[in-house]
Amino acid sequence: MSATTADATAGPPLGSYPPAASTTPTRARERVTYDRALVHSILDAAYLCHLGFVADGRPVVLPTLYARDGERLYLHGSTGARALRHDGLPVCVTVTHVDGLVLAKSAFHHSINYRSVVVHGTARRVTDPARARAALDSLVNAVVPGRAEDCRPANAKELAATAVLELDLAEVSAKVRVGGPHDDPADLELPHWSGVVPVRTVNGTPLPAEDDGTRPELPRYLREFVA
Amino acid sequence: MSATTADATAGPPLGSYPPAASTTPTRARERVTYDRALVHSILDAAYLCHLGFVADGRPVVLPTLYARDGERLYLHGSTGARALRHDGLPVCVTVTHVDGLVLAKSAFHHSINYRSVVVHGTARRVTDPARARAALDSLVNAVVPGRAEDCRPANAKELAATAVLELDLAEVSAKVRVGGPHDDPADLELPHWSGVVPVRTVNGTPLPAEDDGTRPELPRYLREFVA
Repeated sequence: MSATTADATAGPPLGSYPPAASTTPTRARERVTYDRALVHSILDAAYLCHLGFVADGRPVVLPTLYARDGERLYLHGSTGARALRHDGLPVCVTVTHVDGLVLAKSAFHHSINYRSVVVHGTARRVTDPARARAALDSLVNAVVPGRAEDCRPANAKELAATAVLELDLAEVSAKVRVGGPHDDPADLELPHWSGVVPVRTVNGTPLPAEDDGTRPELPRYLREFVA
Repeated sequence: MSATTADATAGPPLGSYPPAASTTPTRARERVTYDRALVHSILDAAYLCHLGFVADGRPVVLPTLYARDGERLYLHGSTGARALRHDGLPVCVTVTHVDGLVLAKSAFHHSINYRSVVVHGTARRVTDPARARAALDSLVNAVVPGRAEDCRPANAKELAATAVLELDLAEVSAKVRVGGPHDDPADLELPHWSGVVPVRTVNGTPLPAEDDGTRPELPRYLREFVA
């Protein structure tokens, strides 16, 4: 636990989320943490979550954009339209980073290095136009930091056509696995390669739009983003 | 639709999955496809899904390893322990690749290029030891092709400790977005940069385990995997 907590971003101590029944894992308990700073760092390093809800008694999981604003998540309505018709919908939001592939001497001890956050709660529609606009800016900046300040803001009609949900960070847990394989001692002399293949996500060279009427140079925030 | 279908792997035509209520989107219908070959290619390009199920009436979404075997998915029990206690559990399995960040002149038209598959169905425990072993091999090979043949197979005790679920590919849909931003004509002369930032996942240089007693050279399938 201490090793994973140390990965959190520097800053004043933020304490922990209180464990709840929904955030107490039934397996691999040693990997779970409720550390707020670590949870924030995992959430802030991504922009795509998997949003789960129940529709007609059945589970539905849809990829959805999100942004964190303090102890709240904003969720984009682009893929959760069925969910967004309701107010006060129970949801589960899960964010996962794959950091490495753990190859052990035995098939059984193969694993994945990952960081994940699971948030349970009740999502509500953001109806106030000013807050909806701020939430949309947060969503744009979650994907490319600085981008919201370099595009035309949504007008009233566009805002009305966009659904944004909010979800409090209250029932929250994170799981982190780091390090190499944990092979049985009896297997360590087997001839198979063992270790970790690091995995990372890379932003490539930006491709200008064909119909761009002005073709500006790549702005600084984008050069830094893809560096 | 034709552009996305053309992305599917070459081979004999496999036809389409029949649309169901659960796989008919309420939004962005133009991006949906039921093409089997395309669905297979999206599933085969990943190994991590987000598994959704309902527990105590509430949605739960957990990152889970999977592998495709024909018209069936195998799901690893590593994170879905709560689900695995049941036989015949309604689930939703979602796989998402992010391929690019679509930056439009307007905040409203920002988007993501992605390929996703959503599978609805009833997952069942694989209890036959021979099938469980084959499923585990498939899961290992889904992460690193060729790896299952280069490690110690699971023994009876390990097999008993590992839960594998199977899920038929019957209620299946895919969604694909490709291409640049779709800006309003009136916005095309705005000075903001517009276009696509490609996103890809990269496997880095493998790091040998510190306690590896034999330190073999990197095998060929791993050299090709990280190339």
